[in-house]
Amino acid sequence: MYIGVDIGGTNIAAGVVNSGGRILRKESVKTRTADGYKAILDDIAALIESLRASGDGTEDIIQIGVGCPGCCNQDTGIVELCVNLGWKDVPLVRDLGAIVGIPVTIENDANAAAFGEFVAGAARGAKSAVAITLGTGVGAGVIIDGKLLHGSNYAGGELGHIVMEVGGEPCGCGRRGCFEAYSSATALIRDTRRAMDANPDSLMHPIAAELGKISARGAWLARTRGDAAGTAVVEKYIEYLAEGIANVVNIFQPEIVCIGGGVCNEGDNLLIPLKAAVASRVYGGKSPRIAVCELGNDAGIIGAALCS
Amino acid sequence: MYIGVDIGGTNIAAGVVNSGGRILRKESVKTRTADGYKAILDDIAALIESLRASGDGTEDIIQIGVGCPGCCNQDTGIVELCVNLGWKDVPLVRDLGAIVGIPVTIENDANAAAFGEFVAGAARGAKSAVAITLGTGVGAGVIIDGKLLHGSNYAGGELGHIVMEVGGEPCGCGRRGCFEAYSSATALIRDTRRAMDANPDSLMHPIAAELGKISARGAWLARTRGDAAGTAVVEKYIEYLAEGIANVVNIFQPEIVCIGGGVCNEGDNLLIPLKAAVASRVYGGKSPRIAVCELGNDAGIIGAALCS
Repeated sequence: MYIGVDIGGTNIAAGVVNSGGRILRKESVKTRTADGYKAILDDIAALIESLRASGDGTEDIIQIGVGCPGCCNQDTGIVELCVNLGWKDVPLVRDLGAIVGIPVTIENDANAAAFGEFVAGAARGAKSAVAITLGTGVGAGVIIDGKLLHGSNYAGGELGHIVMEVGGEPCGCGRRGCFEAYSSATALIRDTRRAMDANPDSLMHPIAAELGKISARGAWLARTRGDAAGTAVVEKYIEYLAEGIANVVNIFQPEIVCIGGGVCNEGDNLLIPLKAAVASRVYGGKSPRIAVCELGNDAGIIGAALCS
Repeated sequence: MYIGVDIGGTNIAAGVVNSGGRILRKESVKTRTADGYKAILDDIAALIESLRASGDGTEDIIQIGVGCPGCCNQDTGIVELCVNLGWKDVPLVRDLGAIVGIPVTIENDANAAAFGEFVAGAARGAKSAVAITLGTGVGAGVIIDGKLLHGSNYAGGELGHIVMEVGGEPCGCGRRGCFEAYSSATALIRDTRRAMDANPDSLMHPIAAELGKISARGAWLARTRGDAAGTAVVEKYIEYLAEGIANVVNIFQPEIVCIGGGVCNEGDNLLIPLKAAVASRVYGGKSPRIAVCELGNDAGIIGAALCS
């Protein structure tokens, strides 16, 4: 049996996971980012002890895997950089291992989530897959012949930072025009806000009032009500997402591309035009399956537990 | 001992290659594209027989590898599509094997050339590498942990068809804005021609007269003579190439990126600004080595011989 830990910006979630990728039970705590590395380390250790104590006494936990939003070096066991948590070169494998007395592995959280979908979610049964999470940013994990792509320095697989408009929209990474700057929820909200500013009569205004904020759902709702400006925002979003996914297909030709994130709740309103737009763009016309991620936040726990 | 065959648009080159990636001797013939598949098959077989006959009688050729400019399915031994040669679904492994009586493998020519550089050229000693050829198009091969990236259907690794300007310059693949549409020699010539049209006083005009044509070298030569329009063409070329390579680095984080093609003859005039521009763009500042391919056309022979 394994324990997977997913360190998120809001919560740290952990679960006992069997070798088939099923979560037997899970717990979570708030992420005490402001209290620093030691506080989070102690909270993770406490979660693990709690999960072990809640077992029937016969479970043999042979490994702990921790998914972390940053660059995780599996050779050294060091989280080299985690901007959101303010970590730089923290020896998480050594420190957590010393507390819990079980071997610890670390993995980038987007990679872990992709591996979770690969083992037990939308990509199960495939030999190669790419999972793309359309959230605050665009996170991704790539699995080739059953193994996560790490790059020679564990900093590879940053598909959200493929530039698709040289000199385009600014991105948090310092470049302009990244996939993330067009296909994240953040980008969708930015474009919604701009379209609202340019179109005072758009239905996106009353919808934002209904929702209590300008959200990534506003343009989609406006479109279903026939609003031209909302429709244009959605169509641009789908076009860029299709370009980005077609790029990923041309690079990897995986068996399946899974997409996750809140925008996937739009269902066929997103998927049907997206699949058509990708199919018309990929090199040689070879388009793989495109599906929605199935495991939600559990993917990170399952993948962290099993990916190494 | 191995024989590698590189089917090019102009010549078919073949060589006897040892396991260390050294070519012992080689021969070539013109590519009789217009005469069809059977003619080329016979020419390849004749090259192989000639190479074997020129040996000392003790060589044991255990495998033939053929590099082909198209989609080569290693599972079936079929060249699924080779636009330049007009081939579709030709069973090259079966047909050539039946003639020469030695096991035959096939590989995409850009992949084979990349593998050649990996075994015996600029990327030797690395565990992961990307080789990018800036020619008529932009070809690429990706090696991860010593293995070529093929994709689930042998159509992956098409890095030249990563879109970096949505709706940008038209590309031969049918999309717009591909890496190839900015960083190939073809693109450089296109931009040189445009700049000449817009700048009748540019030194690119007398240079084109000297060279006898508008070539990929014209803007570089004009730049060394202080020509503003030529300088602008070169600077744009380097900028887009840097964006494209930074994309590749963010995706794969290989130990080394090798670039090949005629433009690399510009040497440090290209490499120094290119390396600086890539380093300023890659995610997290982690830039690998960038070097020029060393093997020229031999890379394809060596790589085809040894890559499977």
